[in-house]
Amino acid sequence: MSLVETRLEKADLSLPPVPEAAGIYDPAVRSGDLVFTSGQLPFVGGELVAEEGCKGKVNEINQALAAHAARIAVLNALAAVKGVLGDLDHIERVIRLTVYVASESFFANQHIVANGASAVLYEAFGEKGRHARCAIGVAELPLDASVEVELVVSVRKG
Amino acid sequence: MSLVETRLEKADLSLPPVPEAAGIYDPAVRSGDLVFTSGQLPFVGGELVAEEGCKGKVNEINQALAAHAARIAVLNALAAVKGVLGDLDHIERVIRLTVYVASESFFANQHIVANGASAVLYEAFGEKGRHARCAIGVAELPLDASVEVELVVSVRKG
Amino acid sequence: MSLVETRLEKADLSLPPVPEAAGIYDPAVRSGDLVFTSGQLPFVGGELVAEEGCKGKVNEINQALAAHAARIAVLNALAAVKGVLGDLDHIERVIRLTVYVASESFFANQHIVANGASAVLYEAFGEKGRHARCAIGVAELPLDASVEVELVVSVRKG
Repeated sequence: MSLVETRLEKADLSLPPVPEAAGIYDPAVRSGDLVFTSGQLPFVGGELVAEEGCKGKVNEINQALAAHAARIAVLNALAAVKGVLGDLDHIERVIRLTVYVASESFFANQHIVANGASAVLYEAFGEKGRHARCAIGVAELPLDASVEVELVVSVRKG
Repeated sequence: MSLVETRLEKADLSLPPVPEAAGIYDPAVRSGDLVFTSGQLPFVGGELVAEEGCKGKVNEINQALAAHAARIAVLNALAAVKGVLGDLDHIERVIRLTVYVASESFFANQHIVANGASAVLYEAFGEKGRHARCAIGVAELPLDASVEVELVVSVRKG
Repeated sequence: MSLVETRLEKADLSLPPVPEAAGIYDPAVRSGDLVFTSGQLPFVGGELVAEEGCKGKVNEINQALAAHAARIAVLNALAAVKGVLGDLDHIERVIRLTVYVASESFFANQHIVANGASAVLYEAFGEKGRHARCAIGVAELPLDASVEVELVVSVRKG
């Protein structure tokens, strides 16, 4: 198992299977030393489970659950990167994370939801998991997902 | 005519004229092997035509029209890339597509709207048109546009 | 003082102090020749001042104030880049600017708000400040900020 996946397991996190291409776009695409993922929803086994905070609008009451959904979504993003690189140990650095949060009116803690995803990256990569980040509150997400996560990582040379 | 434009014509799609810089930003900017476009609205001849789904909020009733608007917007994005590269045949790969959809409450089919743009990229570039994609539902877009599309492509060497 | 900061001062704009890392993400990250910033809010001295248009939803009445907030946020983004590069004169070109505007219903002038940020980049860098740009109207932003700004710049070689 890769070092990164070992670190994830120690943190009680496990990588989902590498996703297959959905339709006419890909889960992730490499260009030079960068890998860009598609926006990833908090699917578990192909489902968005409302009880786990993965579906519906986010507010101050359910924000901790939504942070949990952000953890799931970023693990899906890492699985998409693995699909391109074969092994997450080829990642040199996490560059950029965007977390879109489907927000109820007046909900202003998108950054707290995004911390769920940032924490996973730190567990997986340590200091190399530090990234530039955007947390945005949006009106609606596909399939009524609570969060959508997009990742850019750089690839180790050689 | 370039191969890519020939493919577009065969699919009954035609590239609009290369856009001019609007104010103090550019339709697209190249950095190394990547070209980033500005967010492109579904303008046809300088107008957002409501009857063609290019203006107003998107819902389940008008989502097919909005997918049509996404086709228009991504063609505008390709025209912006042409303005930088001179010829779309210099594109090596489509890397990343973001589709922002101005969404009515409870509309959750942003991915279906985005498919309109993804399909154009497949028509134009075949397998090299496969991209990482984000589909996001937003509150409002400039000039009450229904969709806004942003593109990143990589450039063939030599 | 750097040339860029001299230009900013002549335009009566001053760069805030270089930000420190907040939690487990960084204000900006470099990858190869690109620097990606985190989404920057219009903080002044650690505060979002509502009277200066930095907090709350944007509408046609307060859009000029929100453009002012976008100026503040993009200066924060430049400070984040300085934290990575040491000197803003190392910037070769501004590549891409995204301006998220927390929008009231029916507000459709996100591009006018974004012009506040674009103008700062032009003041700072002249023609090299011309960038690809997205202006998006979103439901909510962290801490009820009125705008959030994200920047990608390229770095001069050598």
